[in-house]
Amino acid sequence: MSNTPSQTPNAARPDGRTPQNLRTISLERNYTKHAEGSVMVRFGDTHVLCTCSVEDKVPGFLRGQNQGWLTAEYGMLPRSTHSRMDREAARGKQSGRTQEIQRLIGRALRAAVDLTKLGERTLKIDCDVIQADGGTRTASITGAMVAVADAVGKLIASGALVENPIKQFVAAVSVGVVNGQVVLDLNYDEDSTCETDLNVVMTEKGGFVEVQGTAEGDAFSREELNGMLDSAAQGITELVRLQKAALQA
Amino acid sequence: MSNTPSQTPNAARPDGRTPQNLRTISLERNYTKHAEGSVMVRFGDTHVLCTCSVEDKVPGFLRGQNQGWLTAEYGMLPRSTHSRMDREAARGKQSGRTQEIQRLIGRALRAAVDLTKLGERTLKIDCDVIQADGGTRTASITGAMVAVADAVGKLIASGALVENPIKQFVAAVSVGVVNGQVVLDLNYDEDSTCETDLNVVMTEKGGFVEVQGTAEGDAFSREELNGMLDSAAQGITELVRLQKAALQA
Amino acid sequence: MSNTPSQTPNAARPDGRTPQNLRTISLERNYTKHAEGSVMVRFGDTHVLCTCSVEDKVPGFLRGQNQGWLTAEYGMLPRSTHSRMDREAARGKQSGRTQEIQRLIGRALRAAVDLTKLGERTLKIDCDVIQADGGTRTASITGAMVAVADAVGKLIASGALVENPIKQFVAAVSVGVVNGQVVLDLNYDEDSTCETDLNVVMTEKGGFVEVQGTAEGDAFSREELNGMLDSAAQGITELVRLQKAALQA
Amino acid sequence: MSNTPSQTPNAARPDGRTPQNLRTISLERNYTKHAEGSVMVRFGDTHVLCTCSVEDKVPGFLRGQNQGWLTAEYGMLPRSTHSRMDREAARGKQSGRTQEIQRLIGRALRAAVDLTKLGERTLKIDCDVIQADGGTRTASITGAMVAVADAVGKLIASGALVENPIKQFVAAVSVGVVNGQVVLDLNYDEDSTCETDLNVVMTEKGGFVEVQGTAEGDAFSREELNGMLDSAAQGITELVRLQKAALQA
Amino acid sequence: MSNTPSQTPNAARPDGRTPQNLRTISLERNYTKHAEGSVMVRFGDTHVLCTCSVEDKVPGFLRGQNQGWLTAEYGMLPRSTHSRMDREAARGKQSGRTQEIQRLIGRALRAAVDLTKLGERTLKIDCDVIQADGGTRTASITGAMVAVADAVGKLIASGALVENPIKQFVAAVSVGVVNGQVVLDLNYDEDSTCETDLNVVMTEKGGFVEVQGTAEGDAFSREELNGMLDSAAQGITELVRLQKAALQA
Amino acid sequence: MSNTPSQTPNAARPDGRTPQNLRTISLERNYTKHAEGSVMVRFGDTHVLCTCSVEDKVPGFLRGQNQGWLTAEYGMLPRSTHSRMDREAARGKQSGRTQEIQRLIGRALRAAVDLTKLGERTLKIDCDVIQADGGTRTASITGAMVAVADAVGKLIASGALVENPIKQFVAAVSVGVVNGQVVLDLNYDEDSTCETDLNVVMTEKGGFVEVQGTAEGDAFSREELNGMLDSAAQGITELVRLQKAALQA
Repeated sequence: MSNTPSQTPNAARPDGRTPQNLRTISLERNYTKHAEGSVMVRFGDTHVLCTCSVEDKVPGFLRGQNQGWLTAEYGMLPRSTHSRMDREAARGKQSGRTQEIQRLIGRALRAAVDLTKLGERTLKIDCDVIQADGGTRTASITGAMVAVADAVGKLIASGALVENPIKQFVAAVSVGVVNGQVVLDLNYDEDSTCETDLNVVMTEKGGFVEVQGTAEGDAFSREELNGMLDSAAQGITELVRLQKAALQA
Repeated sequence: MSNTPSQTPNAARPDGRTPQNLRTISLERNYTKHAEGSVMVRFGDTHVLCTCSVEDKVPGFLRGQNQGWLTAEYGMLPRSTHSRMDREAARGKQSGRTQEIQRLIGRALRAAVDLTKLGERTLKIDCDVIQADGGTRTASITGAMVAVADAVGKLIASGALVENPIKQFVAAVSVGVVNGQVVLDLNYDEDSTCETDLNVVMTEKGGFVEVQGTAEGDAFSREELNGMLDSAAQGITELVRLQKAALQA
Repeated sequence: MSNTPSQTPNAARPDGRTPQNLRTISLERNYTKHAEGSVMVRFGDTHVLCTCSVEDKVPGFLRGQNQGWLTAEYGMLPRSTHSRMDREAARGKQSGRTQEIQRLIGRALRAAVDLTKLGERTLKIDCDVIQADGGTRTASITGAMVAVADAVGKLIASGALVENPIKQFVAAVSVGVVNGQVVLDLNYDEDSTCETDLNVVMTEKGGFVEVQGTAEGDAFSREELNGMLDSAAQGITELVRLQKAALQA
Repeated sequence: MSNTPSQTPNAARPDGRTPQNLRTISLERNYTKHAEGSVMVRFGDTHVLCTCSVEDKVPGFLRGQNQGWLTAEYGMLPRSTHSRMDREAARGKQSGRTQEIQRLIGRALRAAVDLTKLGERTLKIDCDVIQADGGTRTASITGAMVAVADAVGKLIASGALVENPIKQFVAAVSVGVVNGQVVLDLNYDEDSTCETDLNVVMTEKGGFVEVQGTAEGDAFSREELNGMLDSAAQGITELVRLQKAALQA
Repeated sequence: MSNTPSQTPNAARPDGRTPQNLRTISLERNYTKHAEGSVMVRFGDTHVLCTCSVEDKVPGFLRGQNQGWLTAEYGMLPRSTHSRMDREAARGKQSGRTQEIQRLIGRALRAAVDLTKLGERTLKIDCDVIQADGGTRTASITGAMVAVADAVGKLIASGALVENPIKQFVAAVSVGVVNGQVVLDLNYDEDSTCETDLNVVMTEKGGFVEVQGTAEGDAFSREELNGMLDSAAQGITELVRLQKAALQA
Repeated sequence: MSNTPSQTPNAARPDGRTPQNLRTISLERNYTKHAEGSVMVRFGDTHVLCTCSVEDKVPGFLRGQNQGWLTAEYGMLPRSTHSRMDREAARGKQSGRTQEIQRLIGRALRAAVDLTKLGERTLKIDCDVIQADGGTRTASITGAMVAVADAVGKLIASGALVENPIKQFVAAVSVGVVNGQVVLDLNYDEDSTCETDLNVVMTEKGGFVEVQGTAEGDAFSREELNGMLDSAAQGITELVRLQKAALQA
């Protein structure tokens, strides 16, 4: 299931996209066979394997409260990037960036699920970057949403759950200002040179779940922020459409 | 140096503030004697000791480029909080939250300093929470700005620097939606119950350095976001005024 | 590039193979775009992404000796397995099994390369298991050989190397005794129930690089060992043929 | 609550004290608001925040024995010292010195408390050095004693304890030989240059709890040891007086 | 209890042994007093202290299954080797080599014991190398077998066990190819220069428990492998004889 | 080389010694072959292998200052004790007790050596407890002194050093109060039940290097301290005599 970005050869973006174009997005379900949900999500050359595992227990602080939990972990294969990075397992700890991202993924997906309807279960999301070209955290959230839907679907199909705990879909996209222009879904080249980088997580109904903007160079103005939020909202509408289409494929 | 919040006894906020009131803010310079900059910042009952240490070297990736660096670390004393937390040094690692916050402080302060005017020096900021009552990261950034100014002032006074590398002041404040109302500078009680929590770092000129918003419960709307951004901008104007007054005291 | 195992529906093996059949093997080159060599190897449902990265330096103990080095790391995605495993990066250390396997992969591939013809370069191999169904270490070695060949090919194409440092191909296969019968290339079900498990790494000329046999239940006899070695040799001849075919595709 | 050291301008000590003078000592109770006991102790320019937290459980080896426990942790803020030290939480482990000191603090305070009268509770002491100028471990013990008294006082006031478990006060002081003369309560300059350094923990009744002496240069004689012990005993009498006065303030 | 190797002064081996000679082997029981089994094993200048400790519990995955477990740990004293090695406890982790060896020792000894006859007990083996001269892992296995026999003997003597859970003895030896000749029980000099190194663990009845062969230089042939296996089998027959003699001493 | 304690069968001590008797002490030199100094020291049933390794470099903080350094590490074999302890290398860190002891050993031995006469070399001491029965730290110091003397002797014999850097011998002993009586050189049973435990390190000339006393139960008096110091001084005179005799053997 994928979209078809319009190619405008004479546009300013390095890969020929218009400012408001997403990259080619695909969501390949059942990519691996063991996980309850397993989705290879591709935002252009950024490829992330998102799995959702179901465990029949909850962390200690929730035990006995008749509700579930959802948590996420994130990693990059050492050579998913242009130069090889150290393997975090070998270094013996996860970087601050890794922890920041996996906490974001967890918060984003918890906004999609009514944990009180999950029973005493934990949904464990793993987002592992196979190939990186910018936007790995937003691809992870967008792909993990589909993996969660598949895992929840199996719980319903097996009779373990009666009511669907998914209350709304969430998706995420990055948006930035490059050469003074707002552009959607930055690839690595754009990400490295942009003045401002904003990651937005929204629900299918248009509510904000997370807004994280950073001025890489000069501070950004309220007008730039507004332009980026408009662009992100439009991108997320398209991403949710693709998530739902993938689930019906 | 401190402000005087207007107390409106019949307002909705637990401590009697109006929605747009900051807590009582104070910035006590030269709190300890060894650091080049040492500021105890207090946002109400949140007390953070911010020091800025000058080291005459830069990390490997910047060596020989005739520029400086600025980095930050953050910690909480184990009993700065309501219940005692484990000591991170004893557990053998910093939590994801700690790393997230110290990365934010570093990015925020790097926006204040022209690193190319610093020489091959590193400014090391330490923000240690002595007592926590909500908003420790925004108090840290606001206090660290003054500690950096003091450390830079000593470099200029000693002749080590000729030109002032501080290009603009930055300050930070939290803002949230509690019971449907936008409130500024949340304390712990408000932070625990708010629907949305937004941390904003801005420059003295009104530009955004960081915007980090999270829906704790339901997603938030564009209107709520706009209201929070307006409130934050006003709070930061006041905080920068207090920073500058403290430096002239 | 893949082989075509003969399916014998009434054979004893769970997936219908004859005792001497390999699983369906495929070697997909250029699977990711950043690594100098990048091969997705599949032994049936066991899928391992093998990359070979070239770094222009050697470890300290080899510096200044005008020779190269080759080293390997191994990991499993948390949900590559039937039940989710803990992420090693999150636990803060690699298991003994992981270290055992990555040391084996490194030794095996060093037997393929004349390090004195590599210049002061390190070939860093990463084998990451995307989906596991038994035999991940033998698939890793077999796939990494092709990734090394691709990385070396680029060094030659770019003129960085004049002489090919690959002196011989190596491949690896597991062999075991299940219900008293020698079987080749065990999948997970067979691996879990076999009496004896032998991993063999051989060169294309039929020499042994590594032989690692373990009696899981009762000790095994010299006759069983001989039968397993015969079977492995035949399997490796086929694997080297597939490696070479993949490289010519 | 503080003492008033007699200043003898022409004495040999860098800060004008006589050999037998303590530095200015103060014990500021209720320094932070969350801990059951919270004391900022100052021995001259050495400032340590000592908190005592009450937890309603005991370590595993004491469970079910109807008695309590007391344990201590110690840390230094990175820029409490003349040059910035690495943050132990960031390095991922506590130094040997840190562990040595926190074990000493724990043993010292356990001598003050009858653990069989505490119920199944743990008193957790945290001593965090805000500013260091020599003698941080002796200041920690002296301040922690007051924090323990405050925490125990709250347990009695709330009715959780009927009988006071404090059997005697303890305090600690350092003593050394500088230029052949015994001096009490060394500051950092004296500590760095002294020939011998002795830390003494005593009870209010004059019994020894800990005696730790180290020859920094040449070995020290029995006569020097006797002189140091005499001096320490006198200093501790004064410190216990100050502890009790602080608790009555 | 020791053997007497025939000394052939004009043989090729550095210490005058014939190719098929073991080094002088001794097994000194009750070397330390606390462990249930405590054996100092010496293979020439390789000295390893092997203890077997009995604990009255099993790991979680075996609880309630009415069977026992056996596990092993291995270490080298820092100056057991020619140059001092870093202490693993100080470095904060065990090397891959250490983990590989302790996993091997555990698997080898589990082949000697019928765990279902042990009750819910764990036999914990510790093999600590006091002096290293090659073959520490094979000496460890050979010595640990005797320590296990002693520990089991005490369980039987005390009435804790009625039936002997030892089903067969195991021993281990290294064998290699040096200058084209198969030699048994390599010392460090031979180990460093050999073309091929094979470690073999066998039962007293001649069955294989582990076979681990590595080509250090060129690959080795089937003929060389056969020669090494023959030599190992003969060596192990002698080692088992020495184990049994030691236990009757 | 060993002493002969007088056995007084009707004395109060569990092993028949008089209060002022040392245990049987032996110092076996050249216990292992690789270390420059290697001494198995035995204080009764406490056996510690002490090695001294010479390295031709110094830590960074001493580089270029034309002086040497001496440092020590300490460990216990897991089953050196009555119940098996966790292996520190497997747990991934050294305990506070271990660090306390190895710091003590280092300080004690640095008092014996004139580091300015050592050249840019480091003496690395390793004290590994093979069997523990109380007093492992004092046995370690006493044995390490002899290992240092042997290592220094080799440097002189080889011409690497001309002048002997050993300025005085040091030895250590424990002393305690058991049932109100001062006893020398406590074994484990006495150590576990004593009221007070004092470890003393002295030079051959009777100077104190370290005095570390801890009240295990009630505080101890000045009279008890004096009695213990007298007893320790007498024990150390005997230990230095045994050290020197061992070196002449």
